[in-house]
Amino acid sequence: MTTILGVAEAVLYVSDLARARQFYVDVLGLAVSADFGDACFLQTGQHSTIILFDLVALEKRVSVIPAHGAHGRGHIALAIPSAELDVWRERLIAHGVPIEHEQTWSQGTHSIYFRDPDDNSLELIEASHYPLVWQRLNA
Amino acid sequence: MTTILGVAEAVLYVSDLARARQFYVDVLGLAVSADFGDACFLQTGQHSTIILFDLVALEKRVSVIPAHGAHGRGHIALAIPSAELDVWRERLIAHGVPIEHEQTWSQGTHSIYFRDPDDNSLELIEASHYPLVWQRLNA
Repeated sequence: MTTILGVAEAVLYVSDLARARQFYVDVLGLAVSADFGDACFLQTGQHSTIILFDLVALEKRVSVIPAHGAHGRGHIALAIPSAELDVWRERLIAHGVPIEHEQTWSQGTHSIYFRDPDDNSLELIEASHYPLVWQRLNA
Repeated sequence: MTTILGVAEAVLYVSDLARARQFYVDVLGLAVSADFGDACFLQTGQHSTIILFDLVALEKRVSVIPAHGAHGRGHIALAIPSAELDVWRERLIAHGVPIEHEQTWSQGTHSIYFRDPDDNSLELIEASHYPLVWQRLNA
């Protein structure tokens, strides 16, 4: 018996870690659980985290942890309560963050897309979305 | 009131989507919830998903969904039950997947690192790890 319970860590690469950290703390209200100077851990709910890596520092890093790093624009979707869609949109606008796109999925759930300071694509999606996918998969 | 409940989608970029899909289905036992030819959705528990994107196809894609894509080696950690650490290690070995590294964290939790066919860094981490981080953050 082997089980995957969920995504524990999702990663984005950034060019200015202090700027990125400030964005995720101020705009998304995330708490920093660790900051090693070249990597900043932002807790996303009880069971997962985002890790922001300074891409230049990462490429010079000597560590027992297996190496990784990618150039370009990453993507992460974060789950939010459906009841908070409107307040999340207002919060982004209040912080001067442009809403790039909004999408309603076939499941009836809704997403809001915007960018972080490194042009990574961020999405806020109703938390009910993947449980609905899961139900269909296991029907 | 704005809340982030967790990571809903984490992304990896691959050069051969069919090969990558087979790895994630066979080695990790994940179920495919959608395959669009240039993107394959693999359900990871009830609340999250991994999306594998064909990087070459993604760069040619015309879509209303905001663009992204990165070259290099990504990283995702997946939560597993602590009781399954040994069977997961055996499963990887049985599939001929080399264990690149194992790590015990200061929380007492443990991770197993390996690579997907595109050299992305994958990690299996005890599901108790981030709840322990969360407890400390909220103490």
